[in-house]
Amino acid sequence: MTGSLVIAGLGPGNDALITPEVQAALDRATDIVGYIPYVERVAERPGLTLHPSDNRVEIDRSCHALEMASEGKHVVVVSSGDPGVFAMAAAVFEAVENGEPDWRDLDIQVLPGITAMLAASAACGAPLGHDFCAINLSDNLKPWSLIEKRLRLAAEADFAMAFYNPRSKSRPEGFEKALKTLQDACGDARPIIFARNVSRPDQRINVVPLTKATPDMADMRTVVLLGSSRTRIIERNGAPFVYTPRSVEGE
Amino acid sequence: MTGSLVIAGLGPGNDALITPEVQAALDRATDIVGYIPYVERVAERPGLTLHPSDNRVEIDRSCHALEMASEGKHVVVVSSGDPGVFAMAAAVFEAVENGEPDWRDLDIQVLPGITAMLAASAACGAPLGHDFCAINLSDNLKPWSLIEKRLRLAAEADFAMAFYNPRSKSRPEGFEKALKTLQDACGDARPIIFARNVSRPDQRINVVPLTKATPDMADMRTVVLLGSSRTRIIERNGAPFVYTPRSVEGE
Repeated sequence: MTGSLVIAGLGPGNDALITPEVQAALDRATDIVGYIPYVERVAERPGLTLHPSDNRVEIDRSCHALEMASEGKHVVVVSSGDPGVFAMAAAVFEAVENGEPDWRDLDIQVLPGITAMLAASAACGAPLGHDFCAINLSDNLKPWSLIEKRLRLAAEADFAMAFYNPRSKSRPEGFEKALKTLQDACGDARPIIFARNVSRPDQRINVVPLTKATPDMADMRTVVLLGSSRTRIIERNGAPFVYTPRSVEGE
Repeated sequence: MTGSLVIAGLGPGNDALITPEVQAALDRATDIVGYIPYVERVAERPGLTLHPSDNRVEIDRSCHALEMASEGKHVVVVSSGDPGVFAMAAAVFEAVENGEPDWRDLDIQVLPGITAMLAASAACGAPLGHDFCAINLSDNLKPWSLIEKRLRLAAEADFAMAFYNPRSKSRPEGFEKALKTLQDACGDARPIIFARNVSRPDQRINVVPLTKATPDMADMRTVVLLGSSRTRIIERNGAPFVYTPRSVEGE
């Protein structure tokens, strides 16, 4: 019996954002592996075993999934958003590279999903409508100095920016430092967008000038988008639209 | 009768990547507006009018869609990929900002889609698994000097990179200049991925060292991904996996 491993993105929370490709993989699976709240999104059924695990055990979880696939199971590792954006796909390939030689020849597929920054962007207009970058603000896995360097270079490049994992209880000071760096490097009142629980019924979008942003506006359920120097706000009855124009005039 | 305007992402080409949310909007629509090949992806049915238009008329197309929504139609503007990534959402909001005042109070929604870079990343592993940026290489709407500046700063930040619109018949020299700039700025043989017709039956993924990349490897149906300095290749029977590790050691 030949097993398989699929690393699938469930999107940011609303089931109407799960692609039919991912749904078909879930329907075929014998085993679902992932972080507890993501595994909870998969419906139980006969013949399906759920293997929820805690945060920060990504490599152990990957090895477990690879072992089960080697044994002939049809395993789906579930991620929130897109599995290739600050999620499980890189962890699984790290486990493949450092693990059993025959894991390399397993049937491994990554199925894309709607990543949080694109759902957040859609929810307020098109702030990522021109060149942009995506930065994970967690310093669990990289030094703070590298984050700060990237923020300054991204501001110099005048990218719009998306920030994942802005703030956690264990790193309350990180996002404060990031905001100060951005306020200093950008030097203007461009819009910053705090998108919490994006695509869920309790979604909350808060658009403020960068100069007025404070660390408490974000938590671990928030993705943060920052405009470029050219990002525009369209005032209207109700929440404003925010967008970054497609064109930059010649110099 | 109150109209509506939805700007929807059809994903990179495979219908199994269209979200149920987007499919529901297509099923409710009275009018579909968009670039010819994208409108062709929507099934005809009684009560639905298709309005295909040519490339480079994005603002005219947006105004037409907004006018029809004002008249009470349920209009869907279709984009390939995600509408907020180098696609129609920014064009529609530009038309809103500069158009009829009452367009601002229309019911306008953006529905995200699977953008090409994430489908391409999934097809070869997880090359965007760490901080990354997305750059449109077309210089139709911005000066070449800005593109070059962004490429150099992105290399200095050690971002993985995704490039949209790398090459067209009208700009055969642009991608050659971009490759030379990247080869110079990166100074190594990190993997570059040429993903053509991603997610379609004739998808083709070509992974080469940056030092060996040549301009003819890309055309307008190609999205190009470049690893960071830390991106790894896992050799195996068949196409290699490419991934960027999640962690960077402290300095």
